[in-house]
Amino acid sequence: MTKRIIIGVMGAGEGADPTDVANAFVLGQRIAEQGWVLLSGGRNVGVMDAVSKGAKASGGLTIGILPTIDLFGVSDSIDIPILTGMGSARNNINVLTSDVVIACGIGTAGTLSEIALAIKAGRPVVLLNADEPELHFLQKLGGDLVSAAASPDQAIEIASGVLEARIANMSHASSQP
Amino acid sequence: MTKRIIIGVMGAGEGADPTDVANAFVLGQRIAEQGWVLLSGGRNVGVMDAVSKGAKASGGLTIGILPTIDLFGVSDSIDIPILTGMGSARNNINVLTSDVVIACGIGTAGTLSEIALAIKAGRPVVLLNADEPELHFLQKLGGDLVSAAASPDQAIEIASGVLEARIANMSHASSQP
Amino acid sequence: MTKRIIIGVMGAGEGADPTDVANAFVLGQRIAEQGWVLLSGGRNVGVMDAVSKGAKASGGLTIGILPTIDLFGVSDSIDIPILTGMGSARNNINVLTSDVVIACGIGTAGTLSEIALAIKAGRPVVLLNADEPELHFLQKLGGDLVSAAASPDQAIEIASGVLEARIANMSHASSQP
Amino acid sequence: MTKRIIIGVMGAGEGADPTDVANAFVLGQRIAEQGWVLLSGGRNVGVMDAVSKGAKASGGLTIGILPTIDLFGVSDSIDIPILTGMGSARNNINVLTSDVVIACGIGTAGTLSEIALAIKAGRPVVLLNADEPELHFLQKLGGDLVSAAASPDQAIEIASGVLEARIANMSHASSQP
Repeated sequence: MTKRIIIGVMGAGEGADPTDVANAFVLGQRIAEQGWVLLSGGRNVGVMDAVSKGAKASGGLTIGILPTIDLFGVSDSIDIPILTGMGSARNNINVLTSDVVIACGIGTAGTLSEIALAIKAGRPVVLLNADEPELHFLQKLGGDLVSAAASPDQAIEIASGVLEARIANMSHASSQP
Repeated sequence: MTKRIIIGVMGAGEGADPTDVANAFVLGQRIAEQGWVLLSGGRNVGVMDAVSKGAKASGGLTIGILPTIDLFGVSDSIDIPILTGMGSARNNINVLTSDVVIACGIGTAGTLSEIALAIKAGRPVVLLNADEPELHFLQKLGGDLVSAAASPDQAIEIASGVLEARIANMSHASSQP
Repeated sequence: MTKRIIIGVMGAGEGADPTDVANAFVLGQRIAEQGWVLLSGGRNVGVMDAVSKGAKASGGLTIGILPTIDLFGVSDSIDIPILTGMGSARNNINVLTSDVVIACGIGTAGTLSEIALAIKAGRPVVLLNADEPELHFLQKLGGDLVSAAASPDQAIEIASGVLEARIANMSHASSQP
Repeated sequence: MTKRIIIGVMGAGEGADPTDVANAFVLGQRIAEQGWVLLSGGRNVGVMDAVSKGAKASGGLTIGILPTIDLFGVSDSIDIPILTGMGSARNNINVLTSDVVIACGIGTAGTLSEIALAIKAGRPVVLLNADEPELHFLQKLGGDLVSAAASPDQAIEIASGVLEARIANMSHASSQP
């Protein structure tokens, strides 16, 4: 099969924390350097925009799962805008489609919904820049699915680790009738 | 307009905490006694099933927003099963449709996703039986939208309070062209 | 189980044919007189609005599956507005939720999508006021699932007939583990 | 902006007509040769599978919008499987995301729903291998949005023509605030 590895990076749009935005750009670069496809919420603000810019800066492929029915508000750095027209219900598509979900800051309701939906769907989640109470709260909920990273590079390292098992599992799944 | 008031009660399915299940039954009764319509995830387990049973025991009307395409697994106490066929993406419909969302326990990923989506959509959320760190975490995220209740009766009282402003707002909205 | 019978009536919004709008009002009345719940697209125009007005005129219960995230544009005759926030993707929910789908005129793309999705989902469809080529085209596609009616009363009669088998089937389904 | 041109090819899964399957393979090749991205329903049967195989045979990039929550049943020729978990409601995403929709045969309910949803959303539709009554029926509904093609090459030619106006429009849209 030709399926590419897809890493979803979730985070705030408007009013995103500057540290998260800076981390997002580096995450995008690292994801592209690994040969992975980047998935995000696809809008032209905050973490979504920065991570897509980073991925394009390193020659990567970028997918945006948009809440809208048209291209208004789409990041200029998205190669493939998937127009869902379904608002926040598209958050579930973001996490189902991602082999690993990286939450780049967890300070907004949208991102928290994606972390929760990822846990619900059994997708591994890496929390970048979470504080201690946030981490405790989400690990109580998600158990082994939830990891913490202190830097973009550490997030990529953790993602690499969990992908080995996932890839084995996917190869198996795709060989079923 | 004939629109009925709709109260969404969210909570765990399989493996729900017995206290939450008992609270859910009382919540369902109280919601029906107020003349409100009950909305839930509609399945025949845990909080969803108990709250619907409570509402029917007091003569209420029950809506279930199901993740499935058919009636397998639907609670026997649902009058109107809305079959979405869209899995956890239906969680966003649950909260958009509810005038007030009551989270009856917040120990599962599905419920947390609904709390987060409710905050994102600007719907008021009442947390029943949340512990102190959970409450702190979610109020930091949702501000005034998030309240805490120590009992089903207090949850109903809080819902009544927030509904007055909501009803005024809805009447206004429905008179627009 | 307490599940109510739900009849979905689909048809044009803006620019609806006056015959279809008049038929829709009568359909709404007849559905309510049968004790069935009416489901529609829920907006305050065309067939959706007329069928809901008819059902309320005869004391029925009305569900609207809205494309929007709020109550702007909702028909005043909707008791239970289900806010999906997912635009035309909600058309699939309309048909999945309906025990029988009645297309009140098939002159618009939205209605045709609902007829097609109903056939895809195995829901029986009654075409009211279809011309010969439309009928031929859709029966070739849907086979026995598709019936034609020349009047609202005939549509109700056909729906009653198909419901007997459906009700038997639903009772069976709800008794599964 | 880096947005790629996306062509959606819709058609039957199980039981697809052999002519449609053969046409689908050629369509996939031609789409890839133009440098366009192929979008399909992504499953490993019928038109969806053949068009993806064709695109990969010519070195193209393939997106599949899957109805499922996992990779069971995904075509081996899909690079980017978007897992929606929302069944046929995902048909609306297929057409919203496509700059041009090509229906490779219109003999099934799923494909007809996509044609109807595309018209509803204002997306141009090219019907390949439609018979006269089908064409008449759908052009009455969709007007200028609907074209007919007698071969894969003619479908590509028509798509090229309509894309010029679309691209101009998209460039304009993306420059809005």
